Amino acid sequence: MQINFTKMHGIGNDYVYVDGFKQTLLDPHVFSVFISDRHFGIGSDGLVIILPSEIADFKMRMFNADGSEGKMCGNAARCVGKYVYETGYTTKKQISLETLSGIKYLTLTVEDEEVTSVEVDMGKAILNPKEIPIASQLNFFINHPLEIDGIIYGVTGVSMGNPHAVIFCEDIDYLELEKIGPKFEKHPLFPERINTEFVQIINANTLKMRVWERGSGETWACGTGACATAVAAIVNGYCTQGEEITVKLRGGELKITYKEDGRVLMKGSATKVFEGIIEY
Amino acid sequence: MQINFTKMHGIGNDYVYVDGFKQTLLDPHVFSVFISDRHFGIGSDGLVIILPSEIADFKMRMFNADGSEGKMCGNAARCVGKYVYETGYTTKKQISLETLSGIKYLTLTVEDEEVTSVEVDMGKAILNPKEIPIASQLNFFINHPLEIDGIIYGVTGVSMGNPHAVIFCEDIDYLELEKIGPKFEKHPLFPERINTEFVQIINANTLKMRVWERGSGETWACGTGACATAVAAIVNGYCTQGEEITVKLRGGELKITYKEDGRVLMKGSATKVFEGIIEY
Repeated sequence: MQINFTKMHGIGNDYVYVDGFKQTLLDPHVFSVFISDRHFGIGSDGLVIILPSEIADFKMRMFNADGSEGKMCGNAARCVGKYVYETGYTTKKQISLETLSGIKYLTLTVEDEEVTSVEVDMGKAILNPKEIPIASQLNFFINHPLEIDGIIYGVTGVSMGNPHAVIFCEDIDYLELEKIGPKFEKHPLFPERINTEFVQIINANTLKMRVWERGSGETWACGTGACATAVAAIVNGYCTQGEEITVKLRGGELKITYKEDGRVLMKGSATKVFEGIIEY
Repeated sequence: MQINFTKMHGIGNDYVYVDGFKQTLLDPHVFSVFISDRHFGIGSDGLVIILPSEIADFKMRMFNADGSEGKMCGNAARCVGKYVYETGYTTKKQISLETLSGIKYLTLTVEDEEVTSVEVDMGKAILNPKEIPIASQLNFFINHPLEIDGIIYGVTGVSMGNPHAVIFCEDIDYLELEKIGPKFEKHPLFPERINTEFVQIINANTLKMRVWERGSGETWACGTGACATAVAAIVNGYCTQGEEITVKLRGGELKITYKEDGRVLMKGSATKVFEGIIEY
């Protein structure tokens, strides 16, 4: 059969999007493995299917390149918002989206009927080490010293549904992440392993980060990592809660706001690259 | 403007193909850089434009992912053969193709109007060290000892338009190419650097190889490398000239015949993956 798809990315985090209103994929796990291959398939970080929902405006299911089903991805959620609006499935600019980690809320910025950016309510940041999880009896894990290869790093632990260790450094461009990243990832302090953000403070509203994702290595765009980074910068006193913080990642930038009620809003671009038809 | 394209690969060596009979690309160098990016673009090893020719049946121009124009690629030439036949531009099964390294000849295998494989005449193999080039006064460079990191390798030099050093080994799966590949590539014996093939003999008609390409590192498919490997196996007495030799690369297999007149024929698959439309 022929399957129509749209290729989109959010700051370089790219998925193949299939419109579940028009087509049914019988084996999305297998299809995701096939299409994700960057030489033999379409090439992507995975597959996203856009579907009707009984409890929200729309529903997204996402599958990783290895075929496993993912819970939620902020970069993909923004692209879903762009797709449903520009395809004419809704005229609303506030959209609720059912995901495997609950209903997420999107706010679209629209100019000339084109969605130029989307804000996603990423839920509440968790700072309690037990919930992150970090093997510590402390109530907060903020700028806590951790020795790796003879160097003491100040680690701030934040969960955005997945665990993050945020470290503020002088100059992140020269860090050898492939050497130090795995040592944080596998440190016994982090029983479920950890995503590690290395962050440089540019000014009170601008941060620059690189991320080592557990199981993936260095990636160019990690939405929850950008959120954790902004929260960590605020609890360490570098930035101000309630203000919009620009986080520059290797793939692009995201605007993060850590609200007074503990919710984290993430705003960024959603880009449609091309449309395709594949025989499968 | 909207540009229609077809994504095809030959054993994983993948290009975006644009039909120059229907559309004109004004800046193919820039377009190739944009579309080749695997996260922000379409994702490919480069761009191939299929064009009319005044001196052959068809013409191909190819551009690398960095925007530079390439001379010729056997894996891409097979896909061009598939495209022009299946699009109905020709009913011939013997096709001449103008490239920057001269006219190449393709022979199509067609089943039920589908091109299932294509043979490319890759021209004559060159064994003279001066022409390869290898800094040696010898007339041939066959199983010549070369010490790298205390290990003696037997090197056979072959040019297929580009230089190759072929090394026969016991078990190639466990070789650390990223460590030893660069040491061959940059060895002073090879003034224009070198592509190095590590080859395991399976039987008298089957070889298994891994390749370290100069400037690229390990790749999954190198057509000229497979040709050089078959030629080296013959001049070292492992295989027989005139017989078809199956070379198993990481991306798939190619059938190579080293003809008595010195020409090398390469036969393999050409796969269409999807069709797309991109706004550019």
